[in-house]
Amino acid sequence: MKAEIISVGTELILGHVVNTNASYISRSMAEIGIDILYHSAVGDNEERISDSLHRALKRSDIIITTGGLGPTVDDITLAAIAKTINRKLVFNKAIAEKIKDYFRKKHIPFIKASFRQAYIPEGSLWLKNAVGTAPSLIIQCEDGQKFIVCLPGPPREVTTILENELIPYFKKHIKTQGLIKSRLIKLIGLSEVSVDSKIKDILKLERPTTVGIYTNPGEVHIKITAKAGNEKECGENIKKIEKVVRKRLSKFIYGVDNENLEGVVVDLLIKSKNTLGIAESCTGGLVTHRITNISGSSNCFKMGIVAYGNDAKIAHLGVSRALITRYGTVSKPVAIAMAKGIKKAANTKIGIGITGIAGPTGATKTKPVGLVHIALVSDKKKMSKKCFFLGKREDTKFLASQAALELIWMHLKK
Amino acid sequence: MKAEIISVGTELILGHVVNTNASYISRSMAEIGIDILYHSAVGDNEERISDSLHRALKRSDIIITTGGLGPTVDDITLAAIAKTINRKLVFNKAIAEKIKDYFRKKHIPFIKASFRQAYIPEGSLWLKNAVGTAPSLIIQCEDGQKFIVCLPGPPREVTTILENELIPYFKKHIKTQGLIKSRLIKLIGLSEVSVDSKIKDILKLERPTTVGIYTNPGEVHIKITAKAGNEKECGENIKKIEKVVRKRLSKFIYGVDNENLEGVVVDLLIKSKNTLGIAESCTGGLVTHRITNISGSSNCFKMGIVAYGNDAKIAHLGVSRALITRYGTVSKPVAIAMAKGIKKAANTKIGIGITGIAGPTGATKTKPVGLVHIALVSDKKKMSKKCFFLGKREDTKFLASQAALELIWMHLKK
Repeated sequence: MKAEIISVGTELILGHVVNTNASYISRSMAEIGIDILYHSAVGDNEERISDSLHRALKRSDIIITTGGLGPTVDDITLAAIAKTINRKLVFNKAIAEKIKDYFRKKHIPFIKASFRQAYIPEGSLWLKNAVGTAPSLIIQCEDGQKFIVCLPGPPREVTTILENELIPYFKKHIKTQGLIKSRLIKLIGLSEVSVDSKIKDILKLERPTTVGIYTNPGEVHIKITAKAGNEKECGENIKKIEKVVRKRLSKFIYGVDNENLEGVVVDLLIKSKNTLGIAESCTGGLVTHRITNISGSSNCFKMGIVAYGNDAKIAHLGVSRALITRYGTVSKPVAIAMAKGIKKAANTKIGIGITGIAGPTGATKTKPVGLVHIALVSDKKKMSKKCFFLGKREDTKFLASQAALELIWMHLKK
Repeated sequence: MKAEIISVGTELILGHVVNTNASYISRSMAEIGIDILYHSAVGDNEERISDSLHRALKRSDIIITTGGLGPTVDDITLAAIAKTINRKLVFNKAIAEKIKDYFRKKHIPFIKASFRQAYIPEGSLWLKNAVGTAPSLIIQCEDGQKFIVCLPGPPREVTTILENELIPYFKKHIKTQGLIKSRLIKLIGLSEVSVDSKIKDILKLERPTTVGIYTNPGEVHIKITAKAGNEKECGENIKKIEKVVRKRLSKFIYGVDNENLEGVVVDLLIKSKNTLGIAESCTGGLVTHRITNISGSSNCFKMGIVAYGNDAKIAHLGVSRALITRYGTVSKPVAIAMAKGIKKAANTKIGIGITGIAGPTGATKTKPVGLVHIALVSDKKKMSKKCFFLGKREDTKFLASQAALELIWMHLKK
């Protein structure tokens, strides 16, 4: 089953709204074995909607439209569809009743213009919309060989209709050949191209099981996607590839699927009965923010100090002025002193110190913007790392926070 | 000038990544008078990329592609383009040098496979990419009548190349008819429906000048959009509406366009020669992170302490144990004591204290998840605020950080 999505709305084309519907629908369809091969978006323009639909009917079996089902004059998706497939728009009493009822339930006065939404292409199947008045429809055409699905624009309505109506309908009425499952393997400490060079062979795999690499700020993800007749088979095919990936890259893999680095770090801290204090300078609280995003982090995280100026580093982290004078604020000895300082102040087993130049100002001849020193001090160990990051202030902050979390992860894993 | 965007990437079609590039590019192009009429997305499949490009060349003058420029074997955008427009891929020395240099600057060993990115269609104009190795290109074809622009996939690279390279190029080389300008007016302290009720009349305006309301976490934006022959005319039409909006809602407006609350707050702090210390509990460093995202914040921000446990609040912020026992950690007196404590520890003119329950655990019978007390203490003043937020842990953290910044803004404005 080949399928595609046509999103209708001038707000999309002007870039005022991000098209989150397309990715949500793609994900949901993949899970029930329907392959979305194209996304397209056009404005509220009858000719361009019709053009896109014509093309879609030539290459796809299922066409899902979103948007343009509202009660206002610029909502023209149904009119454009009706014209393209030569159907009349007819008044649907049940939908009209539902619209009236919606106003009644919300205790707001009925607006007659809303009846515009009760006109639908002849022969459409109406899908209930529990959260709005827009009629969602399935229109079979070309002797039942093709399906046009019309969904509203608001993401909340799309997700509700998909879950309650469309997915159950497809599961019942459409024979798909298998379904798609994915597994995300998350790595740190290795660049995209290095990961690529280690799994070159499996990147060339072709359907039904494929592997892709995705770069994210400070980490690389390997995605294994399998298409098979059922969930079990999908799972087995994924497992085979995952085993190969793990064999070659195990020491860089910190997590899978929805796990994130801060979550894995907090988990390791709690499991190893460790406690954490964080002293930040250039990252300005971001490491602490990421750690405290994790529910349960209060079981391991005790205190963070963001010491921007030298005075704060000296007074509250016990960094000596002589050390700063000798090596400079952005240096390995100061990062280590900060880690020691917070470890003591917070009375924790692990202390992290971060000092660097987030930019855009603050660089010196020998110390460029993006230079960051990170240190970890525990009862038994002292680790440090010197990094150079390229990019804007916020990028440097994020990448430095990522490197700091990586250091904790390296310290705790296995 | 008709333009369209073709986004390339199997991750888009599978719904694993939301296509934020398309909306960003559309917005940016509208601002310089280039109308984007279509978005489309296809997987990393040469035939489908080529098909989409063929169609685009028939209907559009400018085609902007994103994605598929990486160094790995599944990055095939340039190969597909070259084939479609009958050009050879040629090795570009300057790009190769730039790639080598990138590895050098990052102090990581060079990987030869990266040279894959130095092969570009003959006759391409190379746009510098300050934040990655992917070559961005402008390819003129059909006797210079049409432009194909190739951009990488990562949003960070797209925004940088657009700002630094593509927009200046288009401004210089392309004649457009009319343009669209928008003005965003940003409000805090008022709900969407209240804003709606105050500007109901102007929300009904029709093209060429329109007004919309957009809700964002913790703030509401009013967007005025005008289309006209030139910038001046656009500006005048926008100004007329903005005047009305400001007359009705002035005391809630904190900024416009790209300004954000933290930036406005840092600006006010510096202008009023104030200094800031921040003591956080439930927000876990987020307020400090947001303040330090602003370049120049080191001129006003001195220190932040994230005191998660009571011990840290007592030892480092001077909150008395008796106060905590009497009122509870999440209380107005503790928030004020934290603000006083950080003011003293950081030796600043203003201190902020935040204590609350971010959830999902930690609620008591009288204190629900989402309850947050925020206090501001200055040499002359003491202000506090009690808030109830609904949502997940990260939502509560963000909304509380927003409320804390709002408190500083209220204190400093005018």
